[in-house]
Amino acid sequence: MTQQKQMILSLAMFGAAGLNFKSWTDPEVKLSSYPDINIDIEAAKLAEKGKFHFMFFGDFPGNKASDTSDMQTMGLDPMMIASIISNHTERIGMGITRATSWSNPYDVARQFKTLDALSKGRMAWNAVTGANGVSANAYGVNLAPSFDRYGKAYEFTEAVQALWATWGEDALKLNHSTKEFADYDQVKAISLKGKYVQSSGTLPIPPSKQGQPLIFHSGGSENSIAFAGKYADVFVGEVWTIEQGQAIRQALRDAAVANGRQPDDIKFIAGVMPLLGDNKKEAIERHAQFIDDDTFLQRVAHIGYVLGIDFTPADLEKPIDPKLLDQVVVTPYSDPRLENVLKVAREGWSLRELVYHSVIDYHPAAVGTAQDIADYMTEWFEAGAADGFWVMPDVYKVDLTRFVDEVVPILQEEGSFHKDYEGETLRENLGVAYQYGTRERE
Amino acid sequence: MTQQKQMILSLAMFGAAGLNFKSWTDPEVKLSSYPDINIDIEAAKLAEKGKFHFMFFGDFPGNKASDTSDMQTMGLDPMMIASIISNHTERIGMGITRATSWSNPYDVARQFKTLDALSKGRMAWNAVTGANGVSANAYGVNLAPSFDRYGKAYEFTEAVQALWATWGEDALKLNHSTKEFADYDQVKAISLKGKYVQSSGTLPIPPSKQGQPLIFHSGGSENSIAFAGKYADVFVGEVWTIEQGQAIRQALRDAAVANGRQPDDIKFIAGVMPLLGDNKKEAIERHAQFIDDDTFLQRVAHIGYVLGIDFTPADLEKPIDPKLLDQVVVTPYSDPRLENVLKVAREGWSLRELVYHSVIDYHPAAVGTAQDIADYMTEWFEAGAADGFWVMPDVYKVDLTRFVDEVVPILQEEGSFHKDYEGETLRENLGVAYQYGTRERE
Repeated sequence: MTQQKQMILSLAMFGAAGLNFKSWTDPEVKLSSYPDINIDIEAAKLAEKGKFHFMFFGDFPGNKASDTSDMQTMGLDPMMIASIISNHTERIGMGITRATSWSNPYDVARQFKTLDALSKGRMAWNAVTGANGVSANAYGVNLAPSFDRYGKAYEFTEAVQALWATWGEDALKLNHSTKEFADYDQVKAISLKGKYVQSSGTLPIPPSKQGQPLIFHSGGSENSIAFAGKYADVFVGEVWTIEQGQAIRQALRDAAVANGRQPDDIKFIAGVMPLLGDNKKEAIERHAQFIDDDTFLQRVAHIGYVLGIDFTPADLEKPIDPKLLDQVVVTPYSDPRLENVLKVAREGWSLRELVYHSVIDYHPAAVGTAQDIADYMTEWFEAGAADGFWVMPDVYKVDLTRFVDEVVPILQEEGSFHKDYEGETLRENLGVAYQYGTRERE
Repeated sequence: MTQQKQMILSLAMFGAAGLNFKSWTDPEVKLSSYPDINIDIEAAKLAEKGKFHFMFFGDFPGNKASDTSDMQTMGLDPMMIASIISNHTERIGMGITRATSWSNPYDVARQFKTLDALSKGRMAWNAVTGANGVSANAYGVNLAPSFDRYGKAYEFTEAVQALWATWGEDALKLNHSTKEFADYDQVKAISLKGKYVQSSGTLPIPPSKQGQPLIFHSGGSENSIAFAGKYADVFVGEVWTIEQGQAIRQALRDAAVANGRQPDDIKFIAGVMPLLGDNKKEAIERHAQFIDDDTFLQRVAHIGYVLGIDFTPADLEKPIDPKLLDQVVVTPYSDPRLENVLKVAREGWSLRELVYHSVIDYHPAAVGTAQDIADYMTEWFEAGAADGFWVMPDVYKVDLTRFVDEVVPILQEEGSFHKDYEGETLRENLGVAYQYGTRERE
């Protein structure tokens, strides 16, 4: 009997109370101080109850918070949050973003390996380059057009992986009779001097239960696909349609092969915002309460822009005229969300309700009952548009709870999601091969 | 009734199982894997039970571990350990070392303020410059003689404190009726471009319960005293005699005044290794088991060197001839530990037992019963040689337990140590004034 291939689930950990700017206002959350680490701990435990493979932490240093970006651009360092969460969980992994453009490889190697060792092998480093000038300037780095982001990222990642292996795999002895702690002949310094990065010395930390952290990557450019082909075990993406997912997933599989790896060595993870209710209307009405007036008006305007229609306030409460929709031409240069705008608009929702469907947002929304959302994910998965999803519930305490209690069991019952963790480490749970040091070293 | 001035206690957190290279071999520890975060958590809880004011984390990145330096130079990042510990404790503070020579100010500002907010105001940054070339090279920094360590440290510390105040003290609103998260007009970017450090942007994290982390400093040079005079709330020192403690403590008090501050604004913390037993002989015999053969022979040789005596193996088991001791001349250039070597040798211990007293070590040892150790600390404290101590027990589980159960109650009974925490934050417990932003800003 062959094992059915199963999807990967990941929880996005960007906000204070959930993945919406206004999550904190939900009466179930009752946020009375910020930050509140207990909210993150509860979310992590919920995700672990739902057998999620990992939590995914973005990173937005230096950005000025604003009325429409509340939590997502708050400055908390995800390494601290992940450290605490790791101590309250036992199986779920953590993928944490740290950009190579403004970080130091020794620092990154050390903090990630420390946490990988303390968490007994559940860490991944999301090795993005970092293209945000505001973040770069906070770190005193000038991202001029000539700044070779990917050139630095390659050297940086090599250095980090080389540092991870400076402590020999079998160096730790803990021999109580001879009182030998370690065989220090197996601790070997590196000395790297590249064009962008240099580091010499050792990182004396024994291997974790999975050897060393996994490498994740995010992006979408040709450069990012090529980088992922060489280093990434997981690629966290941003796509709005099945076709886009299929294209980037195939590009990643080709890039893996081009680097002498197997196509399945890179897992492509697509984003999804589950809007869950007893029916679609209830689902979008729950979501609507987290859309503030400014955002609402911006999205109405953007829908008008992509459709080429000038809306007035009088248009809000009625469906868009199907004849106008039929005149819209989709081209390769259209907004990637246009097809979904058309599809949902043709279902007859009012313009207001169209906005509530989150057709214009950072990621596609799956709207409806638990079965609707499971069907959405299964369709993407079976079409080869994703190996899994990073899930963005509006409010952890409410919407993640419902997702875990209602959507996860359906996926498990249908055989497309695991019923329990395969092992103890993130590598075991994702089916990623053991690695210690750089790939060349293997 | 005036309140008697009381001493500060701090626990050194450098090792895996305690502050000795061989702590892990203690049968009570039974170390079977490394790292083991539970050992750190238990030590922190013990220290909190003993009402210690804070834990002190050193930092030794990049150094190659060796047979005689096992744990102390292991590469674990203290920020990760402190994050986890903070979540298992409620009152004890944490002072964590991060060197300005090889770190980035935005990174330091962000990680420390994140942890200060998550721990509800219990953090301090030990802002050392970092003079270790091996560590610097790991970070790709060349500490050439021309490297202006203190020049960078001043700019760095100003930048960190300025970043801490970019989120206005009253900006957080959490107004559930208006759904206003924050008044973003109170979030103000900085733009700093110095000779060594630059950073622009915001660090959008609300104040912790104590505003922002304290500043600690360590060292002993004139430069370090001057730096501490301007910035430090606590100075963690390395002195072997009361006279040395008095001298550096007075220098720090003078430096505070020179910067328009009060003499008591800088607390001087001296190191002490408590060797605790039912009597002195038992105390040194327990300590002896953690001294390996190489270290033992090195220390015999060093005692011979500072006394000007050539010892042979035949000398080990007998006291040093008092006539030889009388010929030793103490000069200002002598090893700072010489006076203590002479004092203990004159008590009639054998040369072997002299080594077991740890007369040659990184810090002075207090040897004997709980009352002996309390007396030692009280003598230093009353002589104005220290405002408190960083305590280095051989094994947390054994020797810290005894210290908390036996020494702490004596100090409390005698009125020289507090019976409970004064407040919730590290500032409240150390009596350090509230600060938000740079001092000039106040």
